[in-house]
Amino acid sequence: MSSKTADSQWSSVNQFLSENAARFEEQLKALIRIPSVSAQPAHNADTRKAAEFVCNDLNGSGISAKLVETAGHPIVLGRSPRLEGQPTVLVYGHYDVQPAEKSDGWDTEPFEPVEKGGNLYARGATDDKGQFFTHLKAAEAWMKAGGGLPVNVIYVIEGEEEVGGANLEKFFADYASELACDYAVISDTSQWAPGVPAVTYGLRGLCYLEIVVHGPKTDLHSGMFGGAVANPLNALCRIISSLHDASGRVAVEGFYDAVTPLADWERAEFAKLPFVESEFASRLGVSALSGEAGYTTLERKSARPTCDVHGLWGGYSGPGPKTVLPAQAGAKLSFRLVPNQSNKEIANLFRQHVAKVCPVGVTYEIIEHHGAPGVVVQTDTAGMAAARRAVALAFESEPVLVREGGSIPVVGLIKDQLKVDTLLLGWGQNDDNLHGPNEKFSLSDFHKGIRAGARFMAELAE
Amino acid sequence: MSSKTADSQWSSVNQFLSENAARFEEQLKALIRIPSVSAQPAHNADTRKAAEFVCNDLNGSGISAKLVETAGHPIVLGRSPRLEGQPTVLVYGHYDVQPAEKSDGWDTEPFEPVEKGGNLYARGATDDKGQFFTHLKAAEAWMKAGGGLPVNVIYVIEGEEEVGGANLEKFFADYASELACDYAVISDTSQWAPGVPAVTYGLRGLCYLEIVVHGPKTDLHSGMFGGAVANPLNALCRIISSLHDASGRVAVEGFYDAVTPLADWERAEFAKLPFVESEFASRLGVSALSGEAGYTTLERKSARPTCDVHGLWGGYSGPGPKTVLPAQAGAKLSFRLVPNQSNKEIANLFRQHVAKVCPVGVTYEIIEHHGAPGVVVQTDTAGMAAARRAVALAFESEPVLVREGGSIPVVGLIKDQLKVDTLLLGWGQNDDNLHGPNEKFSLSDFHKGIRAGARFMAELAE
Repeated sequence: MSSKTADSQWSSVNQFLSENAARFEEQLKALIRIPSVSAQPAHNADTRKAAEFVCNDLNGSGISAKLVETAGHPIVLGRSPRLEGQPTVLVYGHYDVQPAEKSDGWDTEPFEPVEKGGNLYARGATDDKGQFFTHLKAAEAWMKAGGGLPVNVIYVIEGEEEVGGANLEKFFADYASELACDYAVISDTSQWAPGVPAVTYGLRGLCYLEIVVHGPKTDLHSGMFGGAVANPLNALCRIISSLHDASGRVAVEGFYDAVTPLADWERAEFAKLPFVESEFASRLGVSALSGEAGYTTLERKSARPTCDVHGLWGGYSGPGPKTVLPAQAGAKLSFRLVPNQSNKEIANLFRQHVAKVCPVGVTYEIIEHHGAPGVVVQTDTAGMAAARRAVALAFESEPVLVREGGSIPVVGLIKDQLKVDTLLLGWGQNDDNLHGPNEKFSLSDFHKGIRAGARFMAELAE
Repeated sequence: MSSKTADSQWSSVNQFLSENAARFEEQLKALIRIPSVSAQPAHNADTRKAAEFVCNDLNGSGISAKLVETAGHPIVLGRSPRLEGQPTVLVYGHYDVQPAEKSDGWDTEPFEPVEKGGNLYARGATDDKGQFFTHLKAAEAWMKAGGGLPVNVIYVIEGEEEVGGANLEKFFADYASELACDYAVISDTSQWAPGVPAVTYGLRGLCYLEIVVHGPKTDLHSGMFGGAVANPLNALCRIISSLHDASGRVAVEGFYDAVTPLADWERAEFAKLPFVESEFASRLGVSALSGEAGYTTLERKSARPTCDVHGLWGGYSGPGPKTVLPAQAGAKLSFRLVPNQSNKEIANLFRQHVAKVCPVGVTYEIIEHHGAPGVVVQTDTAGMAAARRAVALAFESEPVLVREGGSIPVVGLIKDQLKVDTLLLGWGQNDDNLHGPNEKFSLSDFHKGIRAGARFMAELAE
């Protein structure tokens, strides 16, 4: 293909994107309205509906797609028409979302998208419906206006990212030969700031656990029995409290043993990024930032391992007082990990720790939810260069190279099973409040993301 | 009145009790079926209905009773026909109950009483409907079969015991002259064991508090923000954990300063009571008993101050994982107190303690719920002697003198405002599971309690 032909095709693709922008937004809203909460069995039918929506959208663009059934939620698998001699990209996304109830603090119904100030507010707007959908629209533009995709693209859009489903691993194993590719691309991260696009080269891993502490076999009256038996709520707090020392470091023995220290160049890059701690604290509404001593806030939240509790339950939390000494109490918690920590090993260290600190008179059980190792990908590849050029063109600014604090377990899985690096091209913003109330996504970034996704294919084509 | 007349009247009362036993049980069940949960505004109408039930029952027996309105739930105030030259007793009880849902672990509906193995299972069966109702039935027997009560009795049955309502205090102040009496009687405690009745001479006090910890102004994603800010759930656990030291003592500075130590004779009495620690642990289903070092289990649960958490909340506790770093977290907790600890002073000490231990980066608020000082009453009075004789007759065994771990704030209030001691005549059993699921009350003890209540009046008559 001559450069002139390529320019003319790109021009057509670009025009198609502009002319169809409003329709793309309506399609995204329709997808968001499906409450595909993978964690909640009551939403299983909705979750499937979202998968079918994605599958139909791909097929409508001429990308051959189907649902692959799993033991849990189905996976959408699509493939562009084969182009010999061109590289292959695997686009991964997830159509499932975190739980959301208006009563969690939402200003509007979480599954009814609302436009305000150039943003779309809804659960899944940025994580990940709004982001992965950009690649579907980029594909549509090439198929309908550019004479087909300039490279081979495989689409894997799954429905268990938010519950760490084990089914994707089996899928990758079963379909390994069909999924052979040169790069994976995922849009499920953030830009550095408005106007400062980013390509992410590192992610933290995750070890998500739940602990349930059992005391007396039935709830007791604290007046009659308080002082006689260990209280599971008090015991749980003692266990949780023991997970950090006074300097904010995780106090689980061996926790830091495998940690790859931050390289000097990385700390220098972190220091150069535009970031004002006081403004950040003010935006979050906290009186002070806090965490592991010896690291900057950016380092702590992006590239250092941590431990956070996600939920506590037990006893009475209704209105008014109740003097119950409850039979059990529980907590959900996770460790964020960095290379080279193993989530399986960290779960073992946690078990050993609890065995040491659990007060007498209670028993406990530990449930392991999903996990993922931390990852850092190569920054000097042709794919990375193509991605940076595409982002620079679409967002009209050179992207910064960053590490992010979140976990995308599939990046590790792709590395393990398909032996390729993932290009993390995030279109979100740090205040998108994913997983919280009033999640949002910039509509302008939505369209830039589509354009960047489309351009990336052209940049990668040989 | 001659001894012969008195004997004949007692014989009639006794016969009346036997003949009406089945009806009394049906009446108690009807009272229990009213879900008078004072803590829950949704049950306000039920709570009033229970008050009206009690008022109507007294009036039906010829005891002049009325509802006294308060800022909260009404108080039932009844008075027997005046008898000059006879002592006056104030019978206190409460018609409100703790919250209960079948899903809390009940085998049957909590507000539908079920008879099984000689026990009545229902919320309020023993705390306090089944217990205070014995005094109403004792009164009915005297009024209908014994020629009237042999002493003066005032009935104060309130509806805010389980929420520590402040309205009773105002009622005692407003009605002080009408409430003048020689003794108060409360049946809201337990026997020592089946076949071992007890008269309770000591109760622990209570300081009930709630703490809410605030972090970021909105829920955050723990991947993006974990490590940057203090997590309110972790901070709450740290605060709670700091309330005890490694030996099980409360670690709030000054907490033990005012404690009246256990007298040698009291420790000797505790040691004599039939109690096997291993059997007790086995009954509760705990692997080991636990608490403050240096005291026996009986001492710890009855006569030593403690701290227990009653509820924890915050973050996500639904099915599956959610990686939320929540905006806030809370706990309900209380300190059980002994003479001479002041509940107001302990609340202040708690505030000072939290100010010292609260991690940086979070703020908190402390809400004070109800409180009560611990009490010990005189054991060498005529009223106490009459009560012991009445209990011995009805339960066919000499009662033991004990201290109980629970709190009945009204005992302190009665001492303060009416200047009289309270006779704590409990008909319950230690495994009645009040405040928990499957609360029960022995129907045999219900009838013995009625008989003891009736006999007590005769024993007290001069």
